Amino acid sequence: MMKLSARNVLKGTVKKVTPGVVNTEVIVELPGGIQIVSIITKQSAEAMKITEGKEISAVIKASSVMLAIECEGC
Amino acid sequence: MMKLSARNVLKGTVKKVTPGVVNTEVIVELPGGIQIVSIITKQSAEAMKITEGKEISAVIKASSVMLAIECEGC
Amino acid sequence: MMKLSARNVLKGTVKKVTPGVVNTEVIVELPGGIQIVSIITKQSAEAMKITEGKEISAVIKASSVMLAIECEGC
Amino acid sequence: MMKLSARNVLKGTVKKVTPGVVNTEVIVELPGGIQIVSIITKQSAEAMKITEGKEISAVIKASSVMLAIECEGC
Amino acid sequence: MMKLSARNVLKGTVKKVTPGVVNTEVIVELPGGIQIVSIITKQSAEAMKITEGKEISAVIKASSVMLAIECEGC
Amino acid sequence: MMKLSARNVLKGTVKKVTPGVVNTEVIVELPGGIQIVSIITKQSAEAMKITEGKEISAVIKASSVMLAIECEGC
Repeated sequence: MMKLSARNVLKGTVKKVTPGVVNTEVIVELPGGIQIVSIITKQSAEAMKITEGKEISAVIKASSVMLAIECEGC
Repeated sequence: MMKLSARNVLKGTVKKVTPGVVNTEVIVELPGGIQIVSIITKQSAEAMKITEGKEISAVIKASSVMLAIECEGC
Repeated sequence: MMKLSARNVLKGTVKKVTPGVVNTEVIVELPGGIQIVSIITKQSAEAMKITEGKEISAVIKASSVMLAIECEGC
Repeated sequence: MMKLSARNVLKGTVKKVTPGVVNTEVIVELPGGIQIVSIITKQSAEAMKITEGKEISAVIKASSVMLAIECEGC
Repeated sequence: MMKLSARNVLKGTVKKVTPGVVNTEVIVELPGGIQIVSIITKQSAEAMKITEGKEISAVIKASSVMLAIECEGC
Repeated sequence: MMKLSARNVLKGTVKKVTPGVVNTEVIVELPGGIQIVSIITKQSAEAMKITEGKEISAVIKASSVMLAIECEGC
């Protein structure tokens, strides 16, 4: 097994794979139906053999998560 | 209203706020119970008046989402 | 209104839009003429209907801003 | 001289330096008065001898610049 | 085993660990003596039980690697 | 000379350049043979006149370096 320093490792399944010329867009569906969009290089997507339905984890550093809040007249 | 170029804008509520000296750690709970950890500057956390129970969105660029896959002997 | 945890939210206008296959390059001109180059996904650019002359904000996390300094024999 | 792959290299002067325990916050003022906030490690700030009034460049990758747009009912 | 979308996974050993209040600095030494500095959250460093001499990999996305080149009068 | 706030500035030579439509992939070989993959915009690669064999530095922020560790049953 491998342990990562990234604080968010979200298990899900591959919902959709859209290969571009250089990059590939992958939609990961988490349990409950929430979807996360990831863009990785096409070469990585192929090396990882990412296909729809496969189990996959979305890995996100805590410092890459910004926050947004609704406010009146802010 | 404001529209962001970031592809992931995940609505949730603030579950826990842990202020440090410079940074503040915020745990956002999404519907269904999935938790996302965010680290922002303490100054931003205070300016946004982030408190437990408040509605908040986690904003993540698609290119900040890496993927990880389990494989046998890879 | 929406408040973001990113420390830099710089208001300007869209100076130039260059769509690629996957990504779109957007040049934002700040008051005073300083230009900021942004690369976002083509899908985001289309969803945001980014066109020249439109008011827009460049959003940059403080930790994404590196610094460089000239020095003699450093 | 050194040439960087980062698309945004914005020349300015150091307006304010706020050292923390681990990180240092630096405010860079661009010509015309626009301010950019940067957070770097304290060790880098010390190695670069960053002091108020010094000439400095803010270096930002194009892919680190998100965009935000105001819209009605979006 | 786990396969990551990040293009750079550099195997080395932990050379030095410097815990701060929020973050921990880890120096990874690659074969041949090249050193890579990483800053992760203190909580991750503790969860991973990072100690000097341990085998570890530095994981870096290709898009996080900028390039710099020396040039005359550029 | 220029001093950067990024903690990792690794000198090497350009091993391979693969231009795409928008981005260019550059493989940098460090002394001892370790290779680092970088993806920058095609425009930057052309402005920097990156060609095989040229001396170049890979510039990586400490906070962009994640860590991964093998562990039994973790």
